[in-house]
Amino acid sequence: MAAMKEIPYKIYLEENEMPQAWYNVRADMKNKPAPLLNPATMQPMTAEELGGVFCKELVAQELDNDNAYIPIPKEIRDFYKMYRPSPLVRAYCLEEKLQTPAKIYYKFEGNNTSGSHKLNSAIAQAYYAKNQGLKGVTTETGAGQWGTALSMACAYLGLDCQVYMVKVSYEQKPFRREVMRTYGASVTASPSETTAVGRKILEAHPGTSGSLGCAISEAVEAATNQEGYRYVLGSVLNQVLLHQSIIGLETKAAMDKYGIQADIIIGCAGGGSNVGGLISPFVGQMLRGEADYRIIAVEPASCPSLTRGKFAYDFCDTGMVCPLAKMYTLGSGFIPSANHAGGLRYHGMSPVVSQLYHDGLIEATSVEQTKVFEAATYFARVEGILPAPESSHAIRVAIDEALKCKETGEEKTIVFGLTGTGYFDMVAYEKFNNGTMSDYIPTDDDLAQGFAGLPKVD
Amino acid sequence: MAAMKEIPYKIYLEENEMPQAWYNVRADMKNKPAPLLNPATMQPMTAEELGGVFCKELVAQELDNDNAYIPIPKEIRDFYKMYRPSPLVRAYCLEEKLQTPAKIYYKFEGNNTSGSHKLNSAIAQAYYAKNQGLKGVTTETGAGQWGTALSMACAYLGLDCQVYMVKVSYEQKPFRREVMRTYGASVTASPSETTAVGRKILEAHPGTSGSLGCAISEAVEAATNQEGYRYVLGSVLNQVLLHQSIIGLETKAAMDKYGIQADIIIGCAGGGSNVGGLISPFVGQMLRGEADYRIIAVEPASCPSLTRGKFAYDFCDTGMVCPLAKMYTLGSGFIPSANHAGGLRYHGMSPVVSQLYHDGLIEATSVEQTKVFEAATYFARVEGILPAPESSHAIRVAIDEALKCKETGEEKTIVFGLTGTGYFDMVAYEKFNNGTMSDYIPTDDDLAQGFAGLPKVD
Repeated sequence: MAAMKEIPYKIYLEENEMPQAWYNVRADMKNKPAPLLNPATMQPMTAEELGGVFCKELVAQELDNDNAYIPIPKEIRDFYKMYRPSPLVRAYCLEEKLQTPAKIYYKFEGNNTSGSHKLNSAIAQAYYAKNQGLKGVTTETGAGQWGTALSMACAYLGLDCQVYMVKVSYEQKPFRREVMRTYGASVTASPSETTAVGRKILEAHPGTSGSLGCAISEAVEAATNQEGYRYVLGSVLNQVLLHQSIIGLETKAAMDKYGIQADIIIGCAGGGSNVGGLISPFVGQMLRGEADYRIIAVEPASCPSLTRGKFAYDFCDTGMVCPLAKMYTLGSGFIPSANHAGGLRYHGMSPVVSQLYHDGLIEATSVEQTKVFEAATYFARVEGILPAPESSHAIRVAIDEALKCKETGEEKTIVFGLTGTGYFDMVAYEKFNNGTMSDYIPTDDDLAQGFAGLPKVD
Repeated sequence: MAAMKEIPYKIYLEENEMPQAWYNVRADMKNKPAPLLNPATMQPMTAEELGGVFCKELVAQELDNDNAYIPIPKEIRDFYKMYRPSPLVRAYCLEEKLQTPAKIYYKFEGNNTSGSHKLNSAIAQAYYAKNQGLKGVTTETGAGQWGTALSMACAYLGLDCQVYMVKVSYEQKPFRREVMRTYGASVTASPSETTAVGRKILEAHPGTSGSLGCAISEAVEAATNQEGYRYVLGSVLNQVLLHQSIIGLETKAAMDKYGIQADIIIGCAGGGSNVGGLISPFVGQMLRGEADYRIIAVEPASCPSLTRGKFAYDFCDTGMVCPLAKMYTLGSGFIPSANHAGGLRYHGMSPVVSQLYHDGLIEATSVEQTKVFEAATYFARVEGILPAPESSHAIRVAIDEALKCKETGEEKTIVFGLTGTGYFDMVAYEKFNNGTMSDYIPTDDDLAQGFAGLPKVD
């Protein structure tokens, strides 16, 4: 254990303390995440089958349940050095304002132009695509952070980048689109007329505001229809969680350096990229019997895959062209209410996170967006960072846990993931500022509709 | 001299290496900046007269030409710790892309929600206002960075904040307004009907897109008309440059720590807050005969106060209600062409920077905005940070100097100030992306009109 040192406001690791390898939590999981299934055969997808959609090296990472550490190539580590290590911040001001005995830390991933942690996986995926001699990649983006991150990574490496952006975000966030264009990407509102699956969805649901599931279908189709292109995804997949383990590894290294021991670890959960990455090394300790933590995944009440979904095989996309994943899901046809602002709109959840939740290693909770924006505004004023709506789900629960400590007098150490900034979410903030933001929690009937579309898997 | 160490991508000072005092370059200047004059009497403004508009402690700082170091109160240093020290970044990727032997560094001030260095002075000014028992402050904002910074500082301290925002920015940057509102500020487009001076300007120039000079007049009137309010300004004033010296002090400390010796120091110049702060300690060395640097202030060709203005007493505002300052000026009636995107639209220049320029200690140059956005886009793709248009003026000249080194083979060390991020400037980036951005350089006749309004001072 490190000697007691005064904890600075921000802990930055030195460059030589940065992780040299990603941590693959699957290696330590007794119950591995279930394999992806080929929807035609209902058999586990082979490396060859996956290779038609994803880069070769990424397929290997996707299927690797054995190696605990996977070296980060030097080129990726060099890119990481441009915006990493990200700070682990001690929320001294928030603690004082809340008058809580709890000690609150957050790992802040927003200090880069993509505005979030998404860049951690974007550069890895773009690097392997480049390395394989590809011309370009296609992807979807919801809140826009992933698309921006991928655009940045592709611009850096000289790859073409085609982004299908969920229509509601495309309209609410025109400036996100311009950031992507500044990085040389082409951006299409989804569902669009440019793909067969997009046309089919538009025909079935005219006027739809789109969903991540739709945009994924279109991006996959675009990738498979162009020579020298592959599809990349910003969340859900095992490979993405692997890359995002850099968040948790840095967090743990910073904590170890200062002798900080976490009690509660909190992350927001959409597809699971952030929470999965943040908690990986800590869950690894739990799986190896080395430590115990309370881990909480926080999701929107309007898109409650963990807390109200089914643990079942489902399509990863709305168009049902992608493999099936076993995960907590609301059904691939589920589209959150249009009044839901920000990201975390995915119908499913990372198979790794789903399995950990199913095995009782982590908890999940859901919060309503007006409560989330209350916490976001409070946090912005006290800690000086305007958070992304997604990140603010974790802030909400961190504040609630800190307030519980105030009642009980417990000096718990709370660590949460502040995944990004809300600079492109001002339409949502404006609604909140004007008092016109509302909540919508899906009824059981709403959910039953989504569940009805679940595929039958023996 | 420090031992040779490998230079990391980003140099972060430790908290205990952060400056404890601001540096007041005026103490080392042989030719002091000329005093502010009372427009009614044409006599130097007394502390008492200034106290009607500014907080007491800030008046003392404004008039202090003698003390080289002014301690930073602990409360301000604590706030600084939330977003400082800012990194001094080695632009390894840019150097490689340019294939230049030059070594390029930038001091990045954009890693905070205000998106710029403006927060450094905002928290200081808000702190002294709070300390004096005031209810609130009024101010103007152009590009919006200063208004956001002040809103953040006021929210943190619980002060009311009233912002007059230049109309063209108000319209181009609705999201900036929402950030300020999220921090609890009230924001009014200027010129407005809420002040006598605003109504007068609107009558004389119906349909005007506003200017910093107009907004200053309105904010000053609003401050003097409300009990318990004072006016605060984000640039130009001596006190602002004092607070912003934190930029230069940290830069110098980081360079000294790694034994880096600058040859060229480059800063963008609007009212002078950034360039003045960045260069202060380096100019101090020059003034004391301890070192020599080439220092370049870069301004927009559309608002060229240093390169084409007159060194004369002029009003700081359009409404001619403020004191007169001796500075390089285009005349308080000068309003840059509406096609000018971004900030750096002020008609004058900090008296300190003006005096240093007049005395030949620093150079100045001007650049056209399409060239600036070319550099901005190039930099974004290579270094992964989408820069503010203002900051990109410095990037442009840094790249040009690095390319000169490529021709001559000189291994110069170039340091520039990257004052902020362009996340709220996407309307301008969109114009550039679409190829519809144009340049306008004022003609001699345009400038003659501005000069005609200069006051007569014996």
